Amino acid sequence: MNLVENEKTIKSEKIYEGKVISVKIDTVELPDKKYCKREIVEHPGAVAVILVNENNNLVLIKQYRKAIEDYLLEIPAGKIELKESPYDTALRELKEETGYTASSLTKLLSFYTSPGFANEIIHVFIAKDVIKGEATPDIGEFVEMLEFPMETVLQLIKEGKIKDAKTVTAILAYLQFYEK
Amino acid sequence: MNLVENEKTIKSEKIYEGKVISVKIDTVELPDKKYCKREIVEHPGAVAVILVNENNNLVLIKQYRKAIEDYLLEIPAGKIELKESPYDTALRELKEETGYTASSLTKLLSFYTSPGFANEIIHVFIAKDVIKGEATPDIGEFVEMLEFPMETVLQLIKEGKIKDAKTVTAILAYLQFYEK
Repeated sequence: MNLVENEKTIKSEKIYEGKVISVKIDTVELPDKKYCKREIVEHPGAVAVILVNENNNLVLIKQYRKAIEDYLLEIPAGKIELKESPYDTALRELKEETGYTASSLTKLLSFYTSPGFANEIIHVFIAKDVIKGEATPDIGEFVEMLEFPMETVLQLIKEGKIKDAKTVTAILAYLQFYEK
Repeated sequence: MNLVENEKTIKSEKIYEGKVISVKIDTVELPDKKYCKREIVEHPGAVAVILVNENNNLVLIKQYRKAIEDYLLEIPAGKIELKESPYDTALRELKEETGYTASSLTKLLSFYTSPGFANEIIHVFIAKDVIKGEATPDIGEFVEMLEFPMETVLQLIKEGKIKDAKTVTAILAYLQFYEK
């Protein structure tokens, strides 16, 4: 059987409600009428920003990620707060994490990070006409700002030294669709 | 304060153990000695496969994703089973979802999909010397196989019609690092 059909929700059970994520177990009816459980992580969504600075370098953030017990190099990013638009989140996170302000942002693309088990969507913006300032990280946020020419960034992706999906996706989409 | 330091685990509490994911709440000590909770989704990891077939088309899978309540176009992919290598997972999922067998696979890249809250890693392979056969989907798996020329695939990404992060990342990395 090779049909693509919807999954009808029979039951939905919230098992965790946290600060960043919540978790629910949905019982669904499949196209063959059988029941199946879907484990779903709910996330408010996030933004990420491509920032090419006054040195023509891409700005990256190095931070410790407990989930993978390692440091990652990522583009500036952050969760969408309640009632905040993705555009405003992007301006705010850019300022907080890097100190840069942008006169405007251009939307590049949006994608689902892990649609097999999570509803997180990330909206990627490109920062325009940026001005350097002082970073104002959240309490409990410990990050280091780095910058590299785009050729170096591509080399870091190729060598597996940048391995955050949103960062790789955003950079390659920027080069494929925007810079050309 | 702008230092990048490790986070020391003070306490770890498993709150859910499921079929695909498990969830734990870790209490960590930050560089400023304050405590903070990290909500972490554990996932066994997955693979995804770039398959350019005998018509020189990229093979995509259309399937319903309950987490986002929508259909997505994705490259063939699947979870790593217990004691299975990513390479073997890729060969198995390719056969199950598309019917194609590959004489060998070339590793393209690996990335973390949502390192802010999940440890899922996806390993992307390129299928070589493929031979068409009969798909053998898992019970309860309802997918449709489609194929498009690469120019069409790029257009679908640009228009936001392909919006699965692993799919966008894998395709753009393939074009950036492999086809050149």
